[in-house]
Parts: sequence; C-alpha cells; structure tokens
Amino acid sequence: MAALAPYAGQAHVVGLTGSPGVGKSTATSALVKVLRSEGKRVGVLAVDPSSPFSGGALLGDRVRMGDHALDEGVYIRSMASRGHLGGLAWTTPQALRVLDAAGFDVVLVETVGVGQSEVEVAGLADTTVVLLAPGMGDGIQAAKAGILEIGDVFVVNKADREGADQTRRELRSMIAQSSRGAEGRDGSWKPPIVSTEARAGTGFDQLATALAEHRAWLESSGELEQRRTRRARDEIEAIALTALRTRWGQLHGNHDLDALAASVASGESDPYAAADRLLGSLD
Amino acid sequence: MAALAPYAGQAHVVGLTGSPGVGKSTATSALVKVLRSEGKRVGVLAVDPSSPFSGGALLGDRVRMGDHALDEGVYIRSMASRGHLGGLAWTTPQALRVLDAAGFDVVLVETVGVGQSEVEVAGLADTTVVLLAPGMGDGIQAAKAGILEIGDVFVVNKADREGADQTRRELRSMIAQSSRGAEGRDGSWKPPIVSTEARAGTGFDQLATALAEHRAWLESSGELEQRRTRRARDEIEAIALTALRTRWGQLHGNHDLDALAASVASGESDPYAAADRLLGSLD
Repeated sequence: MAALAPYAGQAHVVGLTGSPGVGKSTATSALVKVLRSEGKRVGVLAVDPSSPFSGGALLGDRVRMGDHALDEGVYIRSMASRGHLGGLAWTTPQALRVLDAAGFDVVLVETVGVGQSEVEVAGLADTTVVLLAPGMGDGIQAAKAGILEIGDVFVVNKADREGADQTRRELRSMIAQSSRGAEGRDGSWKPPIVSTEARAGTGFDQLATALAEHRAWLESSGELEQRRTRRARDEIEAIALTALRTRWGQLHGNHDLDALAASVASGESDPYAAADRLLGSLD
Repeated sequence: MAALAPYAGQAHVVGLTGSPGVGKSTATSALVKVLRSEGKRVGVLAVDPSSPFSGGALLGDRVRMGDHALDEGVYIRSMASRGHLGGLAWTTPQALRVLDAAGFDVVLVETVGVGQSEVEVAGLADTTVVLLAPGMGDGIQAAKAGILEIGDVFVVNKADREGADQTRRELRSMIAQSSRGAEGRDGSWKPPIVSTEARAGTGFDQLATALAEHRAWLESSGELEQRRTRRARDEIEAIALTALRTRWGQLHGNHDLDALAASVASGESDPYAAADRLLGSLD
C-alpha cells in the first residue's frame, strides 16, 4: 500500500447505486462501452448486496458483463460486502487504491441501493450516480429518504417505458425543492437527470459527458480534494479501529471487550465505565 | 449511566422496521393500544430517517400518535439519526437504557427501513418486527436483500388490501427456503407471519402474543443474554471510538487525523502508515 500511494489519485471513482430491478448491471455495461470507445481504461467493482449476517455473493464475475470479457482495458471484480461495520469501508477502498494505482482512468463501484452500502459508496466515490426506473414507487420513496442527497448525477433508466416522463418530472421537482436545487446559483453543482435505455445502449454518451463535467467541477471547486481527504480520514480510522479491536480482543483479565460486554449486559457495569477501562488499557 | 445500570435489563426492546408507506406509525400506535390494555407501560422511540448528510427530523412528536398523548403509561420520543456512523449506534442505546431503567415494560424502536438503520435496529432490539404491505414490490425485494434475516416476526399490514394473500405466500415461501425456515426443527425460532389492519386495529392481539412468545424463547434459549452482550460490546466500542476521535482531533503536529488524511489524499502517505502513526500516538 505504501508503494502504491504515489501512483494513486488519478482515477475518476464513480459510484453507481439503485434499487434492485432498475437495470444497474446492464447500465454499467453500457457505460463501460462508451468509456472504452473514448479510449479510457475502466475498472469495475461490483459490491455485492450480501446480507450483513450471512455473507456470500449473489452475483458471479463470470455471468456479468460478458461483452467485456475479452477486453484487456476492462477489469471486473465482484466483492462481497461482508459484515456490518467494515464491509465496504474495509475492503473496497483497498481495491480502489490498487485499480487507481494500476492506471485505470475510471473505476466504477456498483452497489445495490439497499442497506447502508448506498451511503457508504457515496463516501467512497468522487461522483455518485443514482439509477431509477419508471414504475418503481420505491425509487422515489428511497429518494425522499436520502438518495436525493447522495446523487451527483441521476439516471432514469428504461426511459422507453410508460411512466418515465413522470419519474423524471417527480425527480426534477424533488431536486428543485431540495437544497440541491439551489446549488446551481452560486457555481456549485446541480445534479443533472440523464435518460437512458440500457438494453439499447442509448443515453450513455450523455451520461459519460455528465460524469466528465462533474469531475471537472470537482477539480475546479476544490471539492475533489475535500472529498478525498474525507475518504482518507474514514479509511485511516477504519484501519486503526480494526487494529484496536484485535488488541482489545487479546486483553486478559476483566479488561477484554467480551468480559466488559458481559458485565454491562448483566447490569454490573455501565458502558461508559467499560469504555473507560478499555481506553485505560491503551495507556 | 452508572447509576442506571442496575435497573436496566428488564424491558422488552422491540424494533419495528419497514419501507415508507407500509403504515408503520399507525401500526405502532395500534400495538401500543393492545400493550396498554394488558397493563404494560410502553416507551416509543421513533428514529427518524433523516439523511446522514442533512440531519433534521421529518416527523414531529406532536403529530404522532395523538391517541396516546394523555396516557401517562406511554412515553413517545422522536430522535433524528444524524450522522452516518454513530447515529443510531450512539444516541439510541442511551435513550433505550434510560427508558428501560425507568421501568417501561416494552420499548418500541421504530425506524424506516431505508439506509443502514434497519440493520442497526436489529442489533439494538431483543425482537425485530419487519412490516410489509401488499402491492409494494419493494417489500419483497428488500426482504431478498437482507430484511428476511433480521425479522423475528413479520407483519403483513393492510391485510384487507388486494394482494395481501400473495404477499403472505411469497413471504412464507421465502422464509421456508431460507436458513430460518429450518430453524423450527431444533427448538430454535421460526419467524411467524401476522396479518394486521392498522387502521381498524385488527391483528394486534396476535402480534402482541407473537412478541411475548419470542421474548419467552429468547430467555429460555439463552439468546437474550447473547444478544444483549453483543449489544453491550457494540455500545462500548462506539463510546470508546468517540473518545478516541476526540483525542485524535486534538493531536498536534503531523499526527492529527486531519493532517494524516491530507497526506494520504495527496499520495505522500498510505492509510496503513497513517493508521500506525495514529495508534502510535496512543502509546
């Protein structure tokens, strides 16, 4: 990781998220095709919506994006987001760093918008793309509950379907009413809405343009540096915490975390006193 | 908190989660009514699906559950789940502990099943209730992606609506196919499905019975102690981490977290070396 550090920081990290059924995989594949036609090398990390309790991958690399299987300018990798804390936060940044240092121009991180992963991907990416599809009430519902604020670019996929106009209208009105609607005024970023048909491959030129525009804005506004510093902060903390957990697990006597947790659960101690003891063990 | 510790551990902590639109608030209110008729004192924590980026509460205490406004056996409190890490994990356990120590027999924690909160609530609760409604494809979709594994009791609300039978059938078949379907065999818990009509108030006697049965199973199986120890562990870690963050923010020179993050973002350092420095500052 130390050896990779000087080579990293060039790739444009793009997060793609959306509910199951919006056509995320097909859209990712169509976007890769456009980026390849521009001569860009593309890495794809498909972060799997495996349950935080069972682990395990639902999607296999082999069945995904067969169109690009023989293209040496494309690297595709599925990753399980095992574990609640430390899933995306722990493994994905490392994989991103490797692909970045390896010289990929764009790294796409695809996650299903269920659970905490959609928020985490926004933390990891330079640009977050939120995919919606017409006729899925949950798209707009989800948007209400937070998706709206993580999207830098919105895509209405399956734009040939009935209801696409309405989805676009609702989305436009929601953006306008939100804090983001006002962003355009002072030179900040107002999220555009792009219409695509992933199966036919239409609309992805516009999406690639929107991504490039957002990247340019990130650089000129200083936001890129801010986002990357924030990301590095989270990554350092996650690594430090993992190391501390190992230490805390190795403590002996009544100071190890399991013994402290048992004493809190039984009412003998309170969590603040227990945390003090845990921290005391570090000194 | 230390003074409260000996009094805590009696309340039955029940998490309620479900997508927007399944009728969660109405269902919570109807459940409170049944529990009150059994003479139980009930605390309700409505954890707000406020965005991790903006904060802020969508729901007000005053507009919620007016039926119970004058009942001294019911305490209702809305809490914003501000912040990504440390939202639910940080404030809700403290509120739970206070209500528990104050002698409430049941504490209901209501969260919208969007974002990471639904997984976190399962970590906090003794019993997790997942609400679905017919005609919401996202209910089943969400179930596929993890909800299935956090639910100890499933509720099909709006059971008078068209499609309720199908929702129940799909849910039953999904439970049977999952690892939980086999649980009944060896004395472990097989999640029941309860049908309710929150507006009419029907089905909530059965829900209250299912909750009491799950609580009894938790105690007899030893699972209650395990869950509470796990919960205490997470809580202690969260408190310790918050204290560490404060320390890390106060470090001077090139060792404070912001300076380390900037050096990683610029490629001068890597996150592992930075985490080592951060940890070195603790010794």
